[in-house]
Amino acid sequence: MMAGKRQGKYTVVFENPPLIRSYAAVVGQKEAEGPLGSYFENVCEDPMMGRKSWEEAEGELQYAAVLKALDKAFLRPEDIEYLFAGDLLGQSIATSFGVMELQIPHFGLYGACSTMGESLSLGAMSLDGGFARRVICVTSSHYASAEKQFRFPLDYGNQRSLAASWTVTGSGALVLEHPSECSEKAAEKCIRIIGITTGKIMVYGIKDSQNMGACMAPAAAFVIGGHLRDMGRKPEDYDRIITGDLGTVGQKILFELLQEDDIDIRARHMDCGIEIFDGESQDTHAGGSGCGCSAVTLCSYIMNQMESGKWKRVLFVPTGALLSKISFNEGMTIPGIAHGVVLENS
Amino acid sequence: MMAGKRQGKYTVVFENPPLIRSYAAVVGQKEAEGPLGSYFENVCEDPMMGRKSWEEAEGELQYAAVLKALDKAFLRPEDIEYLFAGDLLGQSIATSFGVMELQIPHFGLYGACSTMGESLSLGAMSLDGGFARRVICVTSSHYASAEKQFRFPLDYGNQRSLAASWTVTGSGALVLEHPSECSEKAAEKCIRIIGITTGKIMVYGIKDSQNMGACMAPAAAFVIGGHLRDMGRKPEDYDRIITGDLGTVGQKILFELLQEDDIDIRARHMDCGIEIFDGESQDTHAGGSGCGCSAVTLCSYIMNQMESGKWKRVLFVPTGALLSKISFNEGMTIPGIAHGVVLENS
Repeated sequence: MMAGKRQGKYTVVFENPPLIRSYAAVVGQKEAEGPLGSYFENVCEDPMMGRKSWEEAEGELQYAAVLKALDKAFLRPEDIEYLFAGDLLGQSIATSFGVMELQIPHFGLYGACSTMGESLSLGAMSLDGGFARRVICVTSSHYASAEKQFRFPLDYGNQRSLAASWTVTGSGALVLEHPSECSEKAAEKCIRIIGITTGKIMVYGIKDSQNMGACMAPAAAFVIGGHLRDMGRKPEDYDRIITGDLGTVGQKILFELLQEDDIDIRARHMDCGIEIFDGESQDTHAGGSGCGCSAVTLCSYIMNQMESGKWKRVLFVPTGALLSKISFNEGMTIPGIAHGVVLENS
Repeated sequence: MMAGKRQGKYTVVFENPPLIRSYAAVVGQKEAEGPLGSYFENVCEDPMMGRKSWEEAEGELQYAAVLKALDKAFLRPEDIEYLFAGDLLGQSIATSFGVMELQIPHFGLYGACSTMGESLSLGAMSLDGGFARRVICVTSSHYASAEKQFRFPLDYGNQRSLAASWTVTGSGALVLEHPSECSEKAAEKCIRIIGITTGKIMVYGIKDSQNMGACMAPAAAFVIGGHLRDMGRKPEDYDRIITGDLGTVGQKILFELLQEDDIDIRARHMDCGIEIFDGESQDTHAGGSGCGCSAVTLCSYIMNQMESGKWKRVLFVPTGALLSKISFNEGMTIPGIAHGVVLENS
């Protein structure tokens, strides 16, 4: 049994690939004004989401994304066995306060901006392993709560470096389902999670919290290189290899690191952080970032391209920078992590 | 397949119950001087663990606990497929910096002080599901890093309320193994993880971060009551029902909440937070707490009682209070969560 599921050193291939039964992205105004704007169905004009604090606003984004994803599949919270959820804030408070009303058995995750990859990995394992029929994976970030947590309060008017990224305000939620729970006809239309490649914590020695793309690039290179080796495949076997939020600076380093291993992904690579904003007109410098960045891009543009059949196989690799205000102030490096998820349309 | 694994609404019973192949606890001086002192094999006299900051010291506790657990099973980091790890600090920095050198594929978790329950739940699922042969579950806390994170720096000399708990300095790590990886003879001696009951986020309406036992009691009651209902069992079917860190105040509330459901666990209940310190002579008020509290009690006293055959079946229920400095300062309530894990000796 086990030999069939494990493939190479870091990869698992599922026996009963879980289906993405439904999904939803909820984003802020700036994201809606970006290049992917036409793919976002749910836009909140009020950055406070009608709440009293930035943290509560972020929680509300998660709540709204989950409800919309459930609604699209005609499901209710009680139809879901596990929620795999996380955000960037200390002690994951956006998640805890955002989803508590749903009353779904809860696994809280922390993988920085890679959390959607971690969430999909664990959610898919719980389904393929036969422990659940349906699970929800959700992550979020909010520009204002993240700046307050990691850098400076907005009122301070700090100048941002050119390598800095702009935290995406948004949440993406996906309902994953065991294929035996779905009619054959409905299943045909669903995108499947075929396998996962789980990342390690990688250190590049960078201490600049305004240059997180560089911190995360080695983690992305490890997962992408490891995945291709484990599967015995080439970059051309994927329509897209999609990282989370490396931005323009991190992308360059990723290409260089992979080229050292004779892997050239340049023709197939896309980075959610680069796609989500127009750096020049939106003044976002190196790109978008945050747990919400890869999540909302997945739950809009990526799913759209896959469902329309333009892309048949995608390696989705959310990337995270593992820092806190304390570790940064204490002069620690910023390690990175990434988690790979293979998506295919049937 | 699925029907066999799910039992009732919130519980999973494993087909191939994972074995606890080895385990280790590393604790501080105060824990070693407490009532469980004789059960701790690894005591660090230096609270800084030879490092420069409290956060690094806590990371070092995790690193040491993992290495000792591996050593006891004659295993190396490369023999482990996944690490399920977490701590209390913002962005889990004790974990990230503590375990990164191990280079084990990493799932970062956040469940506050319930994290050892979450870690064992996900670790056991990954094994029973056939996704891994061996995993490590590890959590930690440190008195000084927790006070700095959640309350006041130690130098401030704040007076602690009587309902307050004392964060345990320590880390517990367990190597879990798929039974097919273990010889029959070795397996006979191992404690097994038979099933899990996964908790929801529960709110009791308490806003006092010095009274976390009360915040967590409803979550513990939900898991214990839910588990007994799902399994069709009574408290007497367990040698012990062990909560994480409710302390004396939370224990009282737990008994009352369960009695409303006609469940009386008083004769079977034990709380790691109550056991680990002698409140009177050690001035720890309501008891011990932290991700390390239930972890080090499990990896010493509880495993000892089970391996010696004194206890045959235990329901282990680490409990967590989901707060951050920000949520507390903004006047939010403190929701709780708990995760149940059934341990049996063969």
